[in-house]
Amino acid sequence: MYAQAYFAYDSKKSGGVTISHLRFGTQPIDMPYLIDAADYIACHRQSYVKRFDLLRGIKDGGTFMLNCTWSDDELEHELPARIKRAIAKHHVKFYTLNGDAIGQKLGLGTRINMVMQAAFFALAKVIPLEDAVKYLKDSIVKSYGKKGQKVVDMNWAAVDAGVGEFHEVSYPASWADAVDEKTEGRPTTEYFEKVAAPVLGQIGDDLKVSDFTGREDGTMPSGTAKFEKAGPALYVPSWDHEKCIGCTQCSFVCPHATIRPVLTTEEERAKAPAGFQIAPKGKSGKEYGFTIVVDQLDCLECGSCANVCPTKALTMVPNDDDERGKMDLWYFAQDEVSPKANPQNKKTVIGSQFEQPLFEFSGACAGCGETPYVKLTTQLFGDRMMIANATGCSSIYGGSAPVAPYTTNEKGHGPVWANSLFEDAAEYGFGMFMGVDKIRKDLALKVEAAKAVASPELQAALSDWAANLLEGEGTRERADKVTALLEKEAAGKPVLEEFLAKKKYLVKRSHWIFGGDGWAYDIGFGGVDHVLAQDQDVNILVLDTEVYSNTGGQSSKATPTAAIAQFAASGTTTKKKDLGMMAISYGYVYVAQVAMGSDKNQLMKAMTEAEAYHGPSVVIAYCPCINHGIRKGMGKSQEEEKLAVACGYWDLFRYNPELKEQGKNPFSLDSKEPDYSKFQEFLEGEVRYASLAKGFPELAQSLYEKTVTDAKARRESYVRLQKGFEA
Amino acid sequence: MYAQAYFAYDSKKSGGVTISHLRFGTQPIDMPYLIDAADYIACHRQSYVKRFDLLRGIKDGGTFMLNCTWSDDELEHELPARIKRAIAKHHVKFYTLNGDAIGQKLGLGTRINMVMQAAFFALAKVIPLEDAVKYLKDSIVKSYGKKGQKVVDMNWAAVDAGVGEFHEVSYPASWADAVDEKTEGRPTTEYFEKVAAPVLGQIGDDLKVSDFTGREDGTMPSGTAKFEKAGPALYVPSWDHEKCIGCTQCSFVCPHATIRPVLTTEEERAKAPAGFQIAPKGKSGKEYGFTIVVDQLDCLECGSCANVCPTKALTMVPNDDDERGKMDLWYFAQDEVSPKANPQNKKTVIGSQFEQPLFEFSGACAGCGETPYVKLTTQLFGDRMMIANATGCSSIYGGSAPVAPYTTNEKGHGPVWANSLFEDAAEYGFGMFMGVDKIRKDLALKVEAAKAVASPELQAALSDWAANLLEGEGTRERADKVTALLEKEAAGKPVLEEFLAKKKYLVKRSHWIFGGDGWAYDIGFGGVDHVLAQDQDVNILVLDTEVYSNTGGQSSKATPTAAIAQFAASGTTTKKKDLGMMAISYGYVYVAQVAMGSDKNQLMKAMTEAEAYHGPSVVIAYCPCINHGIRKGMGKSQEEEKLAVACGYWDLFRYNPELKEQGKNPFSLDSKEPDYSKFQEFLEGEVRYASLAKGFPELAQSLYEKTVTDAKARRESYVRLQKGFEA
Repeated sequence: MYAQAYFAYDSKKSGGVTISHLRFGTQPIDMPYLIDAADYIACHRQSYVKRFDLLRGIKDGGTFMLNCTWSDDELEHELPARIKRAIAKHHVKFYTLNGDAIGQKLGLGTRINMVMQAAFFALAKVIPLEDAVKYLKDSIVKSYGKKGQKVVDMNWAAVDAGVGEFHEVSYPASWADAVDEKTEGRPTTEYFEKVAAPVLGQIGDDLKVSDFTGREDGTMPSGTAKFEKAGPALYVPSWDHEKCIGCTQCSFVCPHATIRPVLTTEEERAKAPAGFQIAPKGKSGKEYGFTIVVDQLDCLECGSCANVCPTKALTMVPNDDDERGKMDLWYFAQDEVSPKANPQNKKTVIGSQFEQPLFEFSGACAGCGETPYVKLTTQLFGDRMMIANATGCSSIYGGSAPVAPYTTNEKGHGPVWANSLFEDAAEYGFGMFMGVDKIRKDLALKVEAAKAVASPELQAALSDWAANLLEGEGTRERADKVTALLEKEAAGKPVLEEFLAKKKYLVKRSHWIFGGDGWAYDIGFGGVDHVLAQDQDVNILVLDTEVYSNTGGQSSKATPTAAIAQFAASGTTTKKKDLGMMAISYGYVYVAQVAMGSDKNQLMKAMTEAEAYHGPSVVIAYCPCINHGIRKGMGKSQEEEKLAVACGYWDLFRYNPELKEQGKNPFSLDSKEPDYSKFQEFLEGEVRYASLAKGFPELAQSLYEKTVTDAKARRESYVRLQKGFEA
Repeated sequence: MYAQAYFAYDSKKSGGVTISHLRFGTQPIDMPYLIDAADYIACHRQSYVKRFDLLRGIKDGGTFMLNCTWSDDELEHELPARIKRAIAKHHVKFYTLNGDAIGQKLGLGTRINMVMQAAFFALAKVIPLEDAVKYLKDSIVKSYGKKGQKVVDMNWAAVDAGVGEFHEVSYPASWADAVDEKTEGRPTTEYFEKVAAPVLGQIGDDLKVSDFTGREDGTMPSGTAKFEKAGPALYVPSWDHEKCIGCTQCSFVCPHATIRPVLTTEEERAKAPAGFQIAPKGKSGKEYGFTIVVDQLDCLECGSCANVCPTKALTMVPNDDDERGKMDLWYFAQDEVSPKANPQNKKTVIGSQFEQPLFEFSGACAGCGETPYVKLTTQLFGDRMMIANATGCSSIYGGSAPVAPYTTNEKGHGPVWANSLFEDAAEYGFGMFMGVDKIRKDLALKVEAAKAVASPELQAALSDWAANLLEGEGTRERADKVTALLEKEAAGKPVLEEFLAKKKYLVKRSHWIFGGDGWAYDIGFGGVDHVLAQDQDVNILVLDTEVYSNTGGQSSKATPTAAIAQFAASGTTTKKKDLGMMAISYGYVYVAQVAMGSDKNQLMKAMTEAEAYHGPSVVIAYCPCINHGIRKGMGKSQEEEKLAVACGYWDLFRYNPELKEQGKNPFSLDSKEPDYSKFQEFLEGEVRYASLAKGFPELAQSLYEKTVTDAKARRESYVRLQKGFEA
């Protein structure tokens, strides 16, 4: 017996699709291509019947196995017409199995792989069933034996259930003539319909080269993640307007930008759908009502918003019919409510959330610790950002084809985003800066020549523009003013025409380089260091999960001593590298270390100071990650960040070279003296540390202690630095 | 008229050979190969007639132009027979020109290129002579116009001299039968004769693949630079034994290991050649006499030894017949004097020089600031060193094929040396460490099994070996003891046989990674950082010239603010990166910054502590370089190092993690409070700084001031660090 397997994955961080193409035969298999005519097709997730044309290519008389919770009667209602037609026309043997119910019953939860494998062997009959069962059970002993007899027994029971509990569906011949449901979707774009939708529907291979005409340079439109709508969530945050004080922390911490404050006038509210409420205590300026809306179709149910809510105005509830109706409130806020001038200071925690996130609905994991930082940067600087992204989680959720989570505001302004390689992000972003900077400075040199042929009004606008050439604050307004006047005056005046032709360079860009610790501490560190050393106005955001998250958790130089990582199963033995301290050694680099869950105000200061500083900046952000195995769950990642700082695991600081120039202490250790007695609690709350005690009990305690010692030594070095500058 | 030119260079840092292959014609030239039949051959350096078969391939009736100081009569004596035969047999038109005399007369010194070019056009007649002269003179105006009329006039005069002052030699027909002189050379090796000598003689292209049989793995024998003997030097250090106090500083600072102390017994001296003296004040232990000997055939005449001599026992004198005779003293010391046990502590300045340099006669520039450090490491640890070398000067002078300056001692032990890429030296050296470490630790795990079948004597030796597994001090003796016993006992006992088979791993290796600042601060920094972070026992030596020396002086992140470097002609504007401070941030890395010329004792401490530390070490060594344009000359590079430290340009420090473990202050700022008033004097003493004032007078002062400010800020950060650890 020979076998061959191809697996097709997508690159989503969560909710990704895997398709397994398996061939079996008594002859060697030499078929180096995917299967396009199948004897057996199984679907392990019921929602896929609506998203994908699953039975494309099934053979006449083939078998279709669907894992679902539906009864035969419900199938009539739930199956789309195209699936019904394929079943009936090809005389498919159609089986269902409630794998999830079996999993729950056996204590395996959502792990249904064993059930579905067993069902496959029972129906596909590639080897005698009793052999298959024996092999499966042997493999279970091999894989799970170490985890104890209970786990083995559960999985053996799953095999028996898979063999015994499926059920053949008898369907009416009339399915052959099933008629497509009329679906009325929300408007998308031509690109989305022509390119993205087929790719998302797993038929991207059918696209023709000509479908990409007009995109020869490889750029892709942004703002397309919103059309994907993978939901609906099973649990959603439900908002109690009476309790809400309008602090916007829910929106601040949301990894997917699916919960947002919305400001409405009375006039707008008059047209609102039923159930649209305003919070009496909302901090929204006098003239507006304050409402929290939820995008249930993009929410990943992490619960971060509800966990962070100080007044319990948000609770996670089952997404029943009542809740589902509230999706209309989201669409109302998106479609009918006009953008409002920020009633608060956008540099504050609350004020930042009245700015539109220009990063939304990314494919990051539920509860991701990274995306709230990324989202925040787009709220603060997004309409003039250029981002070079290292490879890693942030490049996957930031730009997985065919859709883009980076988007634009009502004026069409939003981040420019690109990823080149894992290791060159710093250099790549520096190049973006150099190109733009050169053009802008060349223009600045021509201001006097331009003024010589300009109206007094344009002269004043140009002078103002040149005087504030490098200032981000207000740059859009200055650029708009110059542009408006140029449009009136430029015709026939070459120097003004040049300014007009280069009008997009009038705006001071906000240059950012994003990447994880695998990039910043290890593989891309040479570039990070080199770019920081150049003393130019670029900003680096390090999303520090202390591990190579995207590839499954290998140890990086950001990994602390006792952490278990891939290839470091008995713990890392070297302490975490102090990237911030290294950057500080330059003296002219703005450096901050932050943790949103511990101190949002410090984070806001760090982000705005870093961006405003006319030199290189690096912000190192602590990011909980699924690879940490946080026992409380990823919905508590904000709380975990708080504990990390409180126990001394992570320090908050800012080093601002401008203060030194002013004769002040440039270094501010922002997190107070930690309570090291909580350190062990923190370590034990995460599997990456806790599992060390299980696997290597003797080693664990000494490595735990070294981790504390390392953290104390690091803190001491910060205290020394702060005191040194005081003296 | 068409022209084609190929230039063949060697990679020597000094005294290298360039061969220019030029073709001219009225048709386009499509000959993608070197010239093997020449109409015109010119030799610009008279000593080459003895080293190379210059007239190989000259056409019948061709022209040979020799730049030499010889009269026609002297030619009879000076020209080797093979040159005479070629001239006579091919009826060559033979001309001479005393370019050096012309250069001296015109004030051009050794710059004879213009003279020789003019002579070429006069004799080769590729274009009308008057056109050639016009073009040459126009090109002089273009190239040197900015340097003033005087320089232009000197070069114009050189052209006129080149055209007018050559002289045709009439030679006897008997030259056709000239007979080869019998030369009695010192013994070399088969490899040298078969492979190296032809390559050095510029006929390496004639070597056959079969000549490399036995070297398929690419390894090359070490200890071959000594056979090259490019000299003799025109000026050599002459030693006055009466004045010498035996401090060995001359030997310490010599870049080429061409001046050394030698210890002799009375018995040995009885066989010494005439003129072999001992210094009455030499510090050589009671039983030995102390002598300084000079290898005039490898000395590059930098004068460092004489400049550093505290008692003026050394003076640079013309290498006349008297001096030349002293080469016999060198050979006597090499061939007849037995190695002596070191009468001093080898960890001291004086003691280190009684150890044999295992790096000698490299192709580094005269007065090179790097090679004295390299040589010193080989004196201290050379018999058990493994060196991974980054690309740069140190790889060129360290391993230019076909000869190797790294050598072995009388027991055949010496450094293993290799260069892979510019950017991977740290990783490459780390791999060497990992491989050796694994084998040694595997052996250590088998010690108990070995002891079970060993004699009591071998048991004790094995126990001692295992107990000191990671100690460098005494490792050779322990390994020799075990090996000697194994040779007696191992037969038939598999575990002992395994130890014997791996006997070379019994010695604790001293792992070193060498490179310049272009490597350590820039291109290889990612690797340097990564390897330091691994907390393993490897040593990094950074030869910091503050510039990419090997490629002609481009700016690196080690280049300070006001320095003019390639592509930074108006000065660098960012301050020097603090590599040491970055390494210190790890806490477990031994870090030292040294400058031999300022404090040899501090250097000795740094080198020996770095090597002895059972973890990663990095020693950053200040190295004057020809690219600095030191006005005093490269013979004063030690003095320049002293000034650099005294004025605050360079700080000396050591950070020793072991002290921290002992509760002591790990950081020692070893150079005393600088006298910043000397800073400007230092900068103005080097062209890399001084030329800034010429080209950009306004900018220069502000950049000078920034350089001082940067140096002060850096010093302050060291003071802060030291005080911080005290508090």
